[in-house]
Amino acid sequence: MRRLLFEISYAGTRYHGYQVQQNGITVAEAVQDAVERVFPRREAITGCSRTDAGVHARQFTFHMDTEAAIPEKAAVIALNNLLPDDISVKSCREVAPDFHARYNVCWKRYCYEIWNHPVKNPFLQGLAMHHKAPLDAALMDRCAREFVGTHDFALFRTTGGKDVGTVRTIYEAKVERQGEKVIFSVCGDGFLYHMVRLMTGTLLLTALGRLAPGDITAMLETGTGERGITAPAAGLYLDRVSYQPWPEISLTGGDNHGPG
Amino acid sequence: MRRLLFEISYAGTRYHGYQVQQNGITVAEAVQDAVERVFPRREAITGCSRTDAGVHARQFTFHMDTEAAIPEKAAVIALNNLLPDDISVKSCREVAPDFHARYNVCWKRYCYEIWNHPVKNPFLQGLAMHHKAPLDAALMDRCAREFVGTHDFALFRTTGGKDVGTVRTIYEAKVERQGEKVIFSVCGDGFLYHMVRLMTGTLLLTALGRLAPGDITAMLETGTGERGITAPAAGLYLDRVSYQPWPEISLTGGDNHGPG
Repeated sequence: MRRLLFEISYAGTRYHGYQVQQNGITVAEAVQDAVERVFPRREAITGCSRTDAGVHARQFTFHMDTEAAIPEKAAVIALNNLLPDDISVKSCREVAPDFHARYNVCWKRYCYEIWNHPVKNPFLQGLAMHHKAPLDAALMDRCAREFVGTHDFALFRTTGGKDVGTVRTIYEAKVERQGEKVIFSVCGDGFLYHMVRLMTGTLLLTALGRLAPGDITAMLETGTGERGITAPAAGLYLDRVSYQPWPEISLTGGDNHGPG
Repeated sequence: MRRLLFEISYAGTRYHGYQVQQNGITVAEAVQDAVERVFPRREAITGCSRTDAGVHARQFTFHMDTEAAIPEKAAVIALNNLLPDDISVKSCREVAPDFHARYNVCWKRYCYEIWNHPVKNPFLQGLAMHHKAPLDAALMDRCAREFVGTHDFALFRTTGGKDVGTVRTIYEAKVERQGEKVIFSVCGDGFLYHMVRLMTGTLLLTALGRLAPGDITAMLETGTGERGITAPAAGLYLDRVSYQPWPEISLTGGDNHGPG
C-alpha cells in the first residue's frame, strides 16, 4: 500500500465546488472518474480543503492510497490525458502512510482577483470579479494588513459552513495593483466559511468611503461593525497549500510553478 | 445620419466567427441583437475583418449608420449592459460619413499565444494553444523575422477564403517568451485565409529540427517548402486594428488600453 499526494490545479467555473455532493458535478468526482480509469479501482481521495462552487485553485492537494504499482510520473501523464481541460495534475509523490492532505496543512494562501476597469474583460469571464469604479489599492492594502494576527473572525464568516471555532491566525494580508487588476492575497492557518470573500467585500467598502484605516482592527476587537458583501466566487483562487510552518524559507523562489 | 465607429473586444470561444452566417451564432449577430435594443432599429454593422470560429479579438472595429441621437458614451454603456460577458464595447466615436471600418484599415496586428509547459493550464482553456515540448523562442524569433517584407504568401494560406491576390506586406514579426507563454505577433497590411495560423504552425517546426533560419526566406522566394500545421483557432487574437499608416508614431504608448 502506497499513499500518494497529488497536486492539482483547476478552474472551478463548471463545478459545484470540490467536495462530492448531491446536486451537481464536483472537482472530486471528475478526478475520481479519471482515477478509476488509471488505477485498478475507484480509490477514495482526501482533499486539502473544500472550495465553493465557481472557486478556482492554482494549487490543491489530495491524498489517495493504492495497491497499484503505477509510477508517479506515469500516473500524472495518464490522469492529465483523461481529465477535462479545466483540471490538471501538476505532480504526484509518495508520502508517509500517516500523512494527511488536510490535517497536515500548515497554512494556505488565497488570492482574490478584481478586474478594475469601467468595461468588463471578455477574457476574464468567471475568472475575476468586475469592479467598474476606480479602487485605491494602496488604501485597501493599508486596511488589509490589519487582518494579520490571531483574531476571532466570527464577523467574517457566514453560517452554513462546518467551522470549528472562529479564531484563526493570519500571517500575511496585502493588496496589490497589477495593471487593471487589483489582487488581495491572504495567508493563514485556516479560513472560515466565506471568510476571504467577506474580507474582500469589506475592503471594497474603501471605495465608498465606508472603510478607513483602523476600522478592521476595531471590528476584530469588538466583533461588530459594517462588513461588506460576500464577493462573488469567480474571483477567488486557492493559490497555495503549504505543509511547512510559516514563514517558509525558500531557496528556489517558491515551489508553485507550473500551470495556473 | 451619423456614422459611428465602435471598438469592441471578444472571446471567440462560443462563436462561429465574427461574420453572420447560417450554421451558428456569431459575434456580429450578438452585437446586432444588442444594437436593436439600444437603437430604434436593427442597424447593419460593417466589421473591420472576419475572424474564424474560436478566434479572439482584443481590438475589433465596426461602423454603423444611425438616425438616433443617442450620445456615444451612453451607447457604450447601454450596449455593455446588454451584451454577453464575452463581448465588450470599449469605445464609440462619430466618424466621417465615408469612413469605412474595413477599407480604411492601414494595418492589423495578430498575436498567437502558446502555453508551453508539459501540463495544460486550466485557466487558458480556449485561450491558448498547448505545446508540451520546450520551444526555443529565440530561434523561432529569428525565423519569424524572415516574414517581414512584401511577399507572395500563397504557401501560407488555405483555400476556402475569399482572398484577393496573395501578395501582402508584413511590417513586423517576432516571437517572445513571457514566462511559460510563447507569443508570436505579426503586423501587416492584410492577411490571407489561415495565414497567421499557418505561420505559427511553420514556426513550431523549429522544435522538431525541421525549420532553420533561412528556410522561410527560401519558402517565400520559391513558393515551395514544408509548411507546418494550421495552428488551432484558440490561440489566435486579432490584437490591433490601425487606421494610421505604419509605422505608427505614438506619444502615449499605444491606444489599445482597456480590457483584453
